Amino acid sequence: MSYLGIGVSPGNVPVHHVSNLKVIDKRVRIAELILRCLICGLAVVAAVLVATDSQVKVIFTIKKEAKFTDMKVLVFLVIANGLAAAYSLIQVLRCILSMIRGSVLYNKPLAWAIFSGDQLMAYLILAAVAAAAQSGVISKLGQPELQWMKVCNLYGKFCNQVGEGLASSIIVSLSMIVLSGISAFSLFRLYGKNGGKNNAR
Amino acid sequence: MSYLGIGVSPGNVPVHHVSNLKVIDKRVRIAELILRCLICGLAVVAAVLVATDSQVKVIFTIKKEAKFTDMKVLVFLVIANGLAAAYSLIQVLRCILSMIRGSVLYNKPLAWAIFSGDQLMAYLILAAVAAAAQSGVISKLGQPELQWMKVCNLYGKFCNQVGEGLASSIIVSLSMIVLSGISAFSLFRLYGKNGGKNNAR
Repeated sequence: MSYLGIGVSPGNVPVHHVSNLKVIDKRVRIAELILRCLICGLAVVAAVLVATDSQVKVIFTIKKEAKFTDMKVLVFLVIANGLAAAYSLIQVLRCILSMIRGSVLYNKPLAWAIFSGDQLMAYLILAAVAAAAQSGVISKLGQPELQWMKVCNLYGKFCNQVGEGLASSIIVSLSMIVLSGISAFSLFRLYGKNGGKNNAR
Repeated sequence: MSYLGIGVSPGNVPVHHVSNLKVIDKRVRIAELILRCLICGLAVVAAVLVATDSQVKVIFTIKKEAKFTDMKVLVFLVIANGLAAAYSLIQVLRCILSMIRGSVLYNKPLAWAIFSGDQLMAYLILAAVAAAAQSGVISKLGQPELQWMKVCNLYGKFCNQVGEGLASSIIVSLSMIVLSGISAFSLFRLYGKNGGKNNAR
């Protein structure tokens, strides 16, 4: 059980233990960087797809245009994706900076800030995706009991593009959930108590 | 820095360190138990409020009844609350059992199971609340651009009761989010690496 670093003083830490930790650290940091880049890219794609979507339809000489601002929830989705992209960009820069410096995250306030930011983003983007998906389902299938009619029959191209943006947002939210797990790991292992662990057993 | 348990062998752990850990453990476990009881109770309240909600309206001799099954998202909300209540009940029993036994969570597979369950529940209930809230907003304000009319004008009592259920669900989801933070803490501190920490600095 000396593998866990129990009962070792700073003078006699086994070499394989330290190198093992460094390998885990490196892998976690690479996974984090890849996920943050993915989120940044896909969030921009989602925001652009939804925000630039529009379709003009002529019904009995009346010209009608569908825009994303017609549904407040799509505005919310664009804002949430924009925030996720901006946040991820800042985090990518931080990741690269800490990789160049070769420093490891042992700063509790910084770890708390990253953890809180990731959690907030994960819940925000998930809420936006769930709300937009709900509106999407009503648009696609209608809600006959309430006389809310299907609008995707009328604006097929518009709906498809929103669907693509939504699919992209779903990947963003899933990645954000994994990432918030990683930042929870990075934070709470700082509270490890290997010293007391084996004694309590 | 000996407070962090660095460089102490199992033979010479300071007494104040171990007792300090026990106090933190106790507080975390009590907070966890209270939150889980709160979630269990409020999720039952939310599910019952929404599932028993109905209103009959007579419009030009035609009798119309509003039920929660008219909106699929309310069915989803009831199911999510039901799952949260059942899950929390099982967890409450586990908490009480571990308190009676006086055992502390050092079992990694169990900690992983609790962490995963809590995360899943937090995201599930948040998604249900966001989707239901979106439908609620459309019901209350309508979506004139899409000719989706306000239905809360017609079924005021029905809408109010759903609103109460939704408010209860929001508290459930917020509590679940805090709880998933606690279970992340309980899990990842098992991966603490105080041994390697000060060396790297």
